[in-house]
Amino acid sequence: MQVRESIDENADDFFAALSDWLTIPSISGDPACSAEVRRSAEWLVAQLRATGFPIAEVWETAEGQGLPAVYAEWPADDPAAPIALVYGHHDVQPVEPLEEWDSQPFEPVQRDGLLFGRGASDDKGQVFFHLLGVRANLAASGRQAPPVTIKILVEGEEESGSTHFADLLRSQRERLNCDVVVVTDTSMWAADVPSMCVGMRGIIDAQIDLRGPTRDLHSGSFGGAVPNPLHVMADLLAGLHDTDGRVTIPAFYQKVLPISDVERELIARLPFDEKAWLAEAGNSGATVGEAGYGTLERIWARPTAEVNGMWGGYTGPGGKTIIPAQAHAKLSFRLVARQEPAEIIDGLRQYVREHVPAGLEARVTSEGNGVRPCFSAPESPAVQAGRRAMERAFGREVLFTREGGSGPEADLAEILDAPLVFIAVGLDADRVHAPNERVDMDLLLKGAEAAAYLWDEFAAAAGSLTSGR
Amino acid sequence: MQVRESIDENADDFFAALSDWLTIPSISGDPACSAEVRRSAEWLVAQLRATGFPIAEVWETAEGQGLPAVYAEWPADDPAAPIALVYGHHDVQPVEPLEEWDSQPFEPVQRDGLLFGRGASDDKGQVFFHLLGVRANLAASGRQAPPVTIKILVEGEEESGSTHFADLLRSQRERLNCDVVVVTDTSMWAADVPSMCVGMRGIIDAQIDLRGPTRDLHSGSFGGAVPNPLHVMADLLAGLHDTDGRVTIPAFYQKVLPISDVERELIARLPFDEKAWLAEAGNSGATVGEAGYGTLERIWARPTAEVNGMWGGYTGPGGKTIIPAQAHAKLSFRLVARQEPAEIIDGLRQYVREHVPAGLEARVTSEGNGVRPCFSAPESPAVQAGRRAMERAFGREVLFTREGGSGPEADLAEILDAPLVFIAVGLDADRVHAPNERVDMDLLLKGAEAAAYLWDEFAAAAGSLTSGR
Repeated sequence: MQVRESIDENADDFFAALSDWLTIPSISGDPACSAEVRRSAEWLVAQLRATGFPIAEVWETAEGQGLPAVYAEWPADDPAAPIALVYGHHDVQPVEPLEEWDSQPFEPVQRDGLLFGRGASDDKGQVFFHLLGVRANLAASGRQAPPVTIKILVEGEEESGSTHFADLLRSQRERLNCDVVVVTDTSMWAADVPSMCVGMRGIIDAQIDLRGPTRDLHSGSFGGAVPNPLHVMADLLAGLHDTDGRVTIPAFYQKVLPISDVERELIARLPFDEKAWLAEAGNSGATVGEAGYGTLERIWARPTAEVNGMWGGYTGPGGKTIIPAQAHAKLSFRLVARQEPAEIIDGLRQYVREHVPAGLEARVTSEGNGVRPCFSAPESPAVQAGRRAMERAFGREVLFTREGGSGPEADLAEILDAPLVFIAVGLDADRVHAPNERVDMDLLLKGAEAAAYLWDEFAAAAGSLTSGR
Repeated sequence: MQVRESIDENADDFFAALSDWLTIPSISGDPACSAEVRRSAEWLVAQLRATGFPIAEVWETAEGQGLPAVYAEWPADDPAAPIALVYGHHDVQPVEPLEEWDSQPFEPVQRDGLLFGRGASDDKGQVFFHLLGVRANLAASGRQAPPVTIKILVEGEEESGSTHFADLLRSQRERLNCDVVVVTDTSMWAADVPSMCVGMRGIIDAQIDLRGPTRDLHSGSFGGAVPNPLHVMADLLAGLHDTDGRVTIPAFYQKVLPISDVERELIARLPFDEKAWLAEAGNSGATVGEAGYGTLERIWARPTAEVNGMWGGYTGPGGKTIIPAQAHAKLSFRLVARQEPAEIIDGLRQYVREHVPAGLEARVTSEGNGVRPCFSAPESPAVQAGRRAMERAFGREVLFTREGGSGPEADLAEILDAPLVFIAVGLDADRVHAPNERVDMDLLLKGAEAAAYLWDEFAAAAGSLTSGR
């Protein structure tokens, strides 16, 4: 039996079971739904066992204070075979505004080849295709075990900030040991343009607080002769970029991995409609940004400094003629491989120190440690194996994308010390996080097919995947 | 009898009467005190009549909807004599915080040569010295009428924005006709450094609103490739000044009257303690501002652009990774003679238009028409006459100052088309607008003395004062 044959044979059961899972409102951000998140985990464990995983467990987080993850493992017969860890999540986003849903978010319905329901795409549907995939792999090979050891880790807190995820990875570091991490929680360029993500930008936030006079000063008495914190803040923020749109913070670009010619060439081949993209941003003008890079390169592969908020002085109706005592700004930096969040904040501190005049006090703070960027080179063995699996499933060339935003993926790569391969079939059109979330049912089956081929491709590339052991 | 002799003889009665006036809580900003403002006006009319003014009237404003002013007139015998109009106000500031007063604000007490009470300096005490002054002038000359026609206009809404003052000036333009306006509502440099104000900066406010995307954008998806309104606002505000601290708005300095060498020299002779002044602003650093000017020149005689407030994007706790849809800033410009508020706003509009990139919408608005600056050259005949009067009263050289802030004085100069002469003896130490307002009783008597001499000096300078008729 061929992989595709097995998948088609089991497709009805697959969607019936997935629809059952989608009835569980596992909203991790809503404390009232904690029991449902737990029910969702238990449901998945049962399915993994039924699929044949010899190990399938609910994993508590924060000693039972957090929301549970699911772990499963199916060892290859060959103990030297590569170990692949699949990552996804079983919790979902809240559903408000409910009145904008055409059907109930937790009563899944099929229509025109689409399955509607909260979690259909993000991420239950995509996690679930792995169960169909491994079954198809075994059906096609006629063996009792997969050609590589498959571990599956399905988080229950991704939509509420992955609060305990890094701790879980560290405490279970031994059992999660692997040669490659398969991330199934992203999207493709389009249904007819299959693609794989190869990187996500990291992020670190910062706040700049400037304090000048001890109180607001009368601008008639002092205006024009003492530093105005708002002017200094404007200078600081305006000076963050040079005329080429490059960030001026010391050493900001020092560790940035340049985009390879291969990747640039592949990005350039994506059918990108810049005008439509700009319109989506409500902008009828032109794109801006770092000189020498295209829009997709700028939002995927180049770091940025963005001011997210600023405030100071009088902001009510009418006017107030003051030199305000304080000025504040919130910033965030999108980072690319190999920038280190802490080093960026050090650079910002130096920049502020060098630019704030005497008589003003400046403070730069940052909450948390930020998120490191992650990146897997398109030409790396793991990504190439994934690409072959995707190309076999889709029957056409697979291109590469990155994502501008950030998730727990960098923790996976870093704590488990393994390359990431993004295998996912979601679409921008899936309306994840929004009303009427849906998934393209044909694409889910393609995902299962790609997942089935993936284990063979990893087995075939065993030498290069396990060389780092 | 000499002027000073007459003043000393009447001093006790003067302070007794003033103390009586100070018991009336004529707080124009408090609607509950409207009747008290009216009672204060009526009280003053009675005092003016008792002093000998043949005309003394309550003048309604806004057809009785506003708070009343007081008008009085004492014609010179010679119909060709100069006409001087004295300006002051009889309303006072609110008294909160009441617990910080050492005595009740409307129960005046004398202590150590100081008279404490709301309005003691600003402006009842100073208005009232004119009545003592004109009496001393007549006592010294032995005549029945002053040597110049004296008109007195005492406003009842100065502390609440002079809402109806310009209208009053326009509607009473004929009766207020004069050759010189004597403003008695400012302060001197110090008790031992008598001085006269010769100018006040004008002001115009503005708001800049920038609108970019139709909604806040996810900075992961769009950051680095579309214009961020906060960045553009920072650029706009940072670019308002060049590296010499000069305002970059087109034609901003075009009409500015340069400071004369005479005035610069006189300003330089004021005993200015810059360190103490900076400390008052809560600043331990250094002064800043337009290159080529000292601190007093910068705050008195040079125009400025100040950002009074700015806001946009996320300003709550933590961070939010957005490119915000909007950014806003409130500005005010302090203006010096002969800048025109409306032209400054035109210049700002041009500046914003030239600096905002495509895809962002910018709006510049300004409330009201602003306040024109006012200025009387130190070497002008009216100021020189006033200076001689002050020097006779104080027995020493009188220096010149300006004020950085703005009041209804520009309306007086402009609508009545007459030069301003500032005769006042208030001090910064008087705590006007604050708890424990007080006045130096000796200085009030010096003020009366200067006012008495002033009418003779004006009479002596009649030719140059009335040449413009």
